[in-house]
Amino acid sequence: MSTQHRDYPATGAWHLGDPVGTRRFFSLPTERAVALDVGSTLTDVTVAYETWGTLAADASNAILLCHAWTGDSHAAGPADDGHPTPGWWEGLIGPGLAIDTNQFFVVCANVLGGCQGSTGPASAHPADGKPYGSRFPVITIRDIVRAQARLADHLGVRTWHSVIGGSMGGMQVLEWAVMFPDRVRSIIPIATCLQASAQQIAWGAIGRRAIRLDPRWRGGDYYDAAPGDGPWEGLAIARMVAQVTFRSDNVFSEKFGRELADGNADKSGIEMWDRFEVERYLDHHGDKLVRRFDTNSYLVIGKAMDLHDIGRGRGGVVAAVQRITVPVLSVGIWSDILYPSYQQREIARLVVEAGGHADYVEIDSPHGHDSFLIELDQVGRAVTSLLGKV
Amino acid sequence: MSTQHRDYPATGAWHLGDPVGTRRFFSLPTERAVALDVGSTLTDVTVAYETWGTLAADASNAILLCHAWTGDSHAAGPADDGHPTPGWWEGLIGPGLAIDTNQFFVVCANVLGGCQGSTGPASAHPADGKPYGSRFPVITIRDIVRAQARLADHLGVRTWHSVIGGSMGGMQVLEWAVMFPDRVRSIIPIATCLQASAQQIAWGAIGRRAIRLDPRWRGGDYYDAAPGDGPWEGLAIARMVAQVTFRSDNVFSEKFGRELADGNADKSGIEMWDRFEVERYLDHHGDKLVRRFDTNSYLVIGKAMDLHDIGRGRGGVVAAVQRITVPVLSVGIWSDILYPSYQQREIARLVVEAGGHADYVEIDSPHGHDSFLIELDQVGRAVTSLLGKV
Repeated sequence: MSTQHRDYPATGAWHLGDPVGTRRFFSLPTERAVALDVGSTLTDVTVAYETWGTLAADASNAILLCHAWTGDSHAAGPADDGHPTPGWWEGLIGPGLAIDTNQFFVVCANVLGGCQGSTGPASAHPADGKPYGSRFPVITIRDIVRAQARLADHLGVRTWHSVIGGSMGGMQVLEWAVMFPDRVRSIIPIATCLQASAQQIAWGAIGRRAIRLDPRWRGGDYYDAAPGDGPWEGLAIARMVAQVTFRSDNVFSEKFGRELADGNADKSGIEMWDRFEVERYLDHHGDKLVRRFDTNSYLVIGKAMDLHDIGRGRGGVVAAVQRITVPVLSVGIWSDILYPSYQQREIARLVVEAGGHADYVEIDSPHGHDSFLIELDQVGRAVTSLLGKV
Repeated sequence: MSTQHRDYPATGAWHLGDPVGTRRFFSLPTERAVALDVGSTLTDVTVAYETWGTLAADASNAILLCHAWTGDSHAAGPADDGHPTPGWWEGLIGPGLAIDTNQFFVVCANVLGGCQGSTGPASAHPADGKPYGSRFPVITIRDIVRAQARLADHLGVRTWHSVIGGSMGGMQVLEWAVMFPDRVRSIIPIATCLQASAQQIAWGAIGRRAIRLDPRWRGGDYYDAAPGDGPWEGLAIARMVAQVTFRSDNVFSEKFGRELADGNADKSGIEMWDRFEVERYLDHHGDKLVRRFDTNSYLVIGKAMDLHDIGRGRGGVVAAVQRITVPVLSVGIWSDILYPSYQQREIARLVVEAGGHADYVEIDSPHGHDSFLIELDQVGRAVTSLLGKV
């Protein structure tokens, strides 16, 4: 049937490598194991990160950027051997840009559970040196933030000037303000939510099931598979779900319409597996992802997003929001079908109702959820409007 | 991993049975093979149908109901051995009801390609008596409508008083008015579209890929599999995609919130495969579907929906709409994320712009696409408003 992914790496591609380019690695001391929120603990945890600009002597100019699901520490800069993709906010970060590295010291870390240098399911288990695979525990956004806090200690950053991120990055931003209210001076959560909704969980669950259905996933222990024998089909289907929810109906219609990529509906002979252009596009994105991302990391991070709830164990969302005492700029996107803008309006509304300071800004774009990675002018204006105020 | 579907039927459950209850079968004469739109031809075609009420002597009181993706001919009546589910419009059809069987002769046929009595992939291939399986051709909505036209001939119905249906049923409704303008006196397309959009195709494609990924699908030739060894996982995932798009964000949030069905996020030990309530709900619907529906029929009908385009081969949608000369009541649902209401407004708008007669009515419901199966009072009022006018 489907052999299109046969020349992809089966194993090893995401194992912790040497520092490359601007990427650095911070290893938590073994005696300071990361206690996990809903699982066990992790020891020998490494966090991969990159920085731009120079930390001021008083460490007052540090900004933390938090990446989304399949992102990594490479927020800016070209693609190269160590970074399979260009910076996900390339054009927004640099000297004289919206996040001005002449002024700020900017940090971005690959999340715990990831596959671009930080400890994740493809990393070596300390007990036997073999990949964690199915042994990697469930983690939460709070676990990710705790690891970032360790990194901040390591870098000498007591308080972030701002913590900024979209989508899952925005979940981390919110947890930073709730977990460490004295370690942030402002936050900019973008296209995100206070807690994952049932529909968001449902989308995540579909991708999860598709991966589980892939016989090459092997219960999560596929790292010794022969080249090309990894769970790419399942991951590609999971990515298809995400990719549709990341975009919008009208942009899909404008971009792809009903064009066929294979076969021809006007002639006889169209077959079940002949594709429309939109399917080719989704295949292309699935292909791109499986070349650079580990399937188990996709599962682990997706589960962390489903478990995201700033109210959990804190008496609910309203009580948790009361801990947010710094200025908040909540950014929404009107065409976002995955994180509808009512969620970002709610962040601002609840902060204000709790006596805090919050503004809401909406990105005017038809591109759906992904607009926070596309509409850099609007994102930049929003970011600078808050950074200038703090 | 996942053995939850092990006691489902693997084979035979959807083969053509004897007439049961009110269900009747019409077999097209072999010499009148159904020429297919984009494939080959089908011979020995059977159409399963049910009727309610009595055909008038002048055959002027016949209404055709067209069912949706996983529907069947059982539009009204209780579940029984021949009908695994109660009528999909139970409560709307009967003496004194909105579709009044004291007045009208009501017909509903299982679509070509289906699995509830009409010829589909699980039916016997005339060449060898074995199930078609992978040999079943791609069909289109037009093929489905042509088979219904043969049934109308057989029943002595020259002209339908009205043709009515939602979702894929609405696609058939529109094709009836375009293909056979002199055989309909009115149409009521509900929650449907003139052509499948790129986003709709994308959702369909995801389900298709999940089925293909299921090793038990066996390329479509799974009918001789051992009991419990059918492609239920793939079909269940495909159904999950559909079920999320059939409903709405706010109703999911109200109904399920973030409740866990398994595990407990406040205690340690939540696992990757512990489910939220919304996942249990989706599992439940997947389970229900695989017990009554053939996976290959799901693929064939889904492909027909993706190929739906009333403009194909007719000079485009606007030119095709000019053939619609009868009164049209287009019904939309404001909360529908799968067939957004702009599509139903467009049907009415284009008909009027072409000089025809069309009204648009919107169902006020938060329940999303499925509202046409839920909000029977509103659907009934809309239907009677047009039936009374014709």
